[in-house]
Amino acid sequence: MNFEERELNEEQIFKGVLLDVRKSIVELPNGKKSTREFVVHPGAVAILPVEDDYVYLVEQYRFPIKRHLLEIPAGKFDEIGEEPLECGKRELEEEIGKKAKTWIYLGYIHTTPGFSNELIHLYLVKDFEESEMNLDEDEFLEVKKINIKEFEKMILNNEITDAKTIAAYTRAKLIGGI
Amino acid sequence: MNFEERELNEEQIFKGVLLDVRKSIVELPNGKKSTREFVVHPGAVAILPVEDDYVYLVEQYRFPIKRHLLEIPAGKFDEIGEEPLECGKRELEEEIGKKAKTWIYLGYIHTTPGFSNELIHLYLVKDFEESEMNLDEDEFLEVKKINIKEFEKMILNNEITDAKTIAAYTRAKLIGGI
Repeated sequence: MNFEERELNEEQIFKGVLLDVRKSIVELPNGKKSTREFVVHPGAVAILPVEDDYVYLVEQYRFPIKRHLLEIPAGKFDEIGEEPLECGKRELEEEIGKKAKTWIYLGYIHTTPGFSNELIHLYLVKDFEESEMNLDEDEFLEVKKINIKEFEKMILNNEITDAKTIAAYTRAKLIGGI
Repeated sequence: MNFEERELNEEQIFKGVLLDVRKSIVELPNGKKSTREFVVHPGAVAILPVEDDYVYLVEQYRFPIKRHLLEIPAGKFDEIGEEPLECGKRELEEEIGKKAKTWIYLGYIHTTPGFSNELIHLYLVKDFEESEMNLDEDEFLEVKKINIKEFEKMILNNEITDAKTIAAYTRAKLIGGI
C-alpha cells in the first residue's frame, strides 16, 4: 500500500517570527491534484523530569488557546541540526532551573501530522542538581512539583490536556520508568 | 499566578483551503509587547475503536511529514458548533466503515498550544456494526486491525508516533477501558 503524494509545486505563504507556512500542489494516488497547506516547524524536545514520586511541570499562558496550561518543560531547536540531547539540556535548565544526570530517550511524536511537520523528541530525566532558570525575554512560567498519582489523575480528568506531556508520561510508564 | 497576555491587535495573515493563520500583538505580564503567530483550527474528534483484544487504526500518507502514519480515526468539525459525538460518529463510519454502539468520552487534548488552538476530543468506542466507508475525495487510507499488546509495543518503539493516538490509548488505559 502506497498513498504517497507527489509534490508538484511548493510556495512559501508566510514567514514570520515563529511560523513558516507553505502551500503545495500535490498529485494524489489517483492522479488528481490537491492542495496541501502546512506549517514547517524546526522540531522540538520535551522532557519529563521525575524525582522520587514527583514530576516537575511548568505552567504558562498559551496565547493560541487563551489559557494557562500545565506542560512538561520543552523547547524548539535553536538551529537546524542541533542535537536533541543538547536542546533538551538547555531547555530543562532554562525552564526549571535544574540539570539532570540521567537522560532516558523516549522516542518522538508527531503532534499535528495533518497540518505541520512538528516532531518532538521526548526524554525521561532523573537525578538532579540545582542550576539557574534562564527564561527567554517573552517567556513567563511557574514550576510545579506534582505527585505522580496526582499527575495521572490530572491526565484523566482534563486538567492535563497537553499532548506531548501525555505522550511522555505514557512512554515513561510503558518502559517502567515511572 | 497570572501570566495572561492581553491582545492589542489581531491580523489575519492567510486564509487558505485548510489553514487560517493569525498574527497578534500582545502585552506581556511585564508590560512589554510581543508578537504571537498561530493557526486557528476548528477543533477535531479522534476515536479509539476497540474490539476484543484489538484496535482499529488507519494508515495514511501525511504530506507535511512526507511519510505514512498509523493513527486512530479522526476528523475536523464540519462546522462551528458541531457536536463532538456527531462529528465522531461521522468520522468513524467514513474512515473504518463501522458504526459503534458504545461511546465513552475520554476528554480532550491540545496538540500544539504554542502555535495553534487545535483541540481534539477523544472517544473510546466498542460494540460495532458494519456500515460503509465513505472517504473524502482526496483521502486515501487503509484500515489495520492490531492486537492491543502489539499496539502498546508500537507506541513504545516509535512505530506509533501520532500524539492523539497515544493520548487516547493512555486515557482509555487509565480508566481501565482497554
